[in-house]
Amino acid sequence: MADLVEVADPEDPRLADYRDLRDVELRKHLEAEHGLFLAEGEKVVRRAVEAGYEARSFLMAPRWLDGLADVLDAGAAPVYVLPEALIEEVTGFHVHRGALASLRRRPLPDLTAVLEGARSVLVLEDLVDHTNVGAVFRSGAALGFDAVLLAPRCADPLYRRSIKVGMGAVFSTPWTRLPDWYDALPDLSRRGFTTVALTLGPDSVPIEEAVAGVDRLALVLGSEGHGLSARWEASADRRAVIPMAAGIDSLNVAAASAVACYAAARR
Amino acid sequence: MADLVEVADPEDPRLADYRDLRDVELRKHLEAEHGLFLAEGEKVVRRAVEAGYEARSFLMAPRWLDGLADVLDAGAAPVYVLPEALIEEVTGFHVHRGALASLRRRPLPDLTAVLEGARSVLVLEDLVDHTNVGAVFRSGAALGFDAVLLAPRCADPLYRRSIKVGMGAVFSTPWTRLPDWYDALPDLSRRGFTTVALTLGPDSVPIEEAVAGVDRLALVLGSEGHGLSARWEASADRRAVIPMAAGIDSLNVAAASAVACYAAARR
Repeated sequence: MADLVEVADPEDPRLADYRDLRDVELRKHLEAEHGLFLAEGEKVVRRAVEAGYEARSFLMAPRWLDGLADVLDAGAAPVYVLPEALIEEVTGFHVHRGALASLRRRPLPDLTAVLEGARSVLVLEDLVDHTNVGAVFRSGAALGFDAVLLAPRCADPLYRRSIKVGMGAVFSTPWTRLPDWYDALPDLSRRGFTTVALTLGPDSVPIEEAVAGVDRLALVLGSEGHGLSARWEASADRRAVIPMAAGIDSLNVAAASAVACYAAARR
Repeated sequence: MADLVEVADPEDPRLADYRDLRDVELRKHLEAEHGLFLAEGEKVVRRAVEAGYEARSFLMAPRWLDGLADVLDAGAAPVYVLPEALIEEVTGFHVHRGALASLRRRPLPDLTAVLEGARSVLVLEDLVDHTNVGAVFRSGAALGFDAVLLAPRCADPLYRRSIKVGMGAVFSTPWTRLPDWYDALPDLSRRGFTTVALTLGPDSVPIEEAVAGVDRLALVLGSEGHGLSARWEASADRRAVIPMAAGIDSLNVAAASAVACYAAARR
């Protein structure tokens, strides 16, 4: 049975994992220091636990207890139960989907393990926006990509907002950090992948042409503002572009990644 | 020359157009009542004015004046100049891109005028999220769509956030509201368009197949949560789906629209 703990004081130190969820810098420090991440919403909390992440605790209003009973009962983590108004005081905003969980991060898998058997992988360089990271995970999962690799400075896919936008795709898709930024793409080539970088560079070919006939594909995406680094752009096997109307700003990275995954899925 | 007005009091009534930008409900009332909308960021402000929207006023920190000098000098609207900290007090948040403009809405064009010469149009039913509306405008413009039609309850593309996410695509793409919800799709069919509704319904065919050989195309998208209404789903000429991996949540509407526009652009 779940250990239900009614909490009446929003300053209760047992709620420390859930404080000030809108303060990105504070959260980054707190989550790194304690090796935790937060999941938000009944569906996403369930997916996190079902994917094997160990809960440190749960926090929710009474009305979410029934729907999550099996999840809560499966472990020994305490369930802090608070009225919604108090949850807002703790977290600093209105938690629309009611249920939160604080979960333990796990050691990231080895690159070789993540690539085992993968035919299509996404490689993200320095995306800074958690929403975009979540959207890319979701699109990749929906369109049949097998894994996601992140450059050392790419935003955290286990940040609350990434998980939420990705609908928990980060739990079902194998992913890890690349150990080395500089030689990341040549290393993938040595491992048998054709690296295709999405970029507006002058020698880019249409994406459909770039992925045609490719067996093991690594589709490489750059940051929102400046795109790929010169090093990654130059060290990719191929450069590809999504053909666009003249005079229009490019697609944003979430839209571009969805289109590129679609084209790649049909190669 | 622009009429520069330094303002020292954040409560100054001349700043009324710029108050509480995060309060969506308040903004909806204020903007409807005064027939205004806000543009945010140097690039987007410039595009709005260049697209012919008449400014009621501008508000910005001193450092944005030079970059926008030609835009400000082109009209007679006052330019309220405030330190960034005061702008934050007025608007309720940190305006990252510094410059704001309050512009007059214009009467929406007639449906016939918007469709004149259009070969590919997007039709949005009840999208509720301004971010998604902006993203769809941006993807449509980038991928060669000629116009956007909105059901009566679709979220406002001139809401600040829609404009910002769309990078001003709402200024360059002809759009209007559909006068009638119930018969909107049969009416488009009578006007010579093949209406293709994106839906997970049982008789959907892959999007590429659905748009093959179509001359004048109306690509129809439903709301984020529940998709299309039964009426629109049934009254479309064809139903289409983006083929996805088994057991995965569908793409979000912004990603799905980008993929569908891409497939349609290549028909």
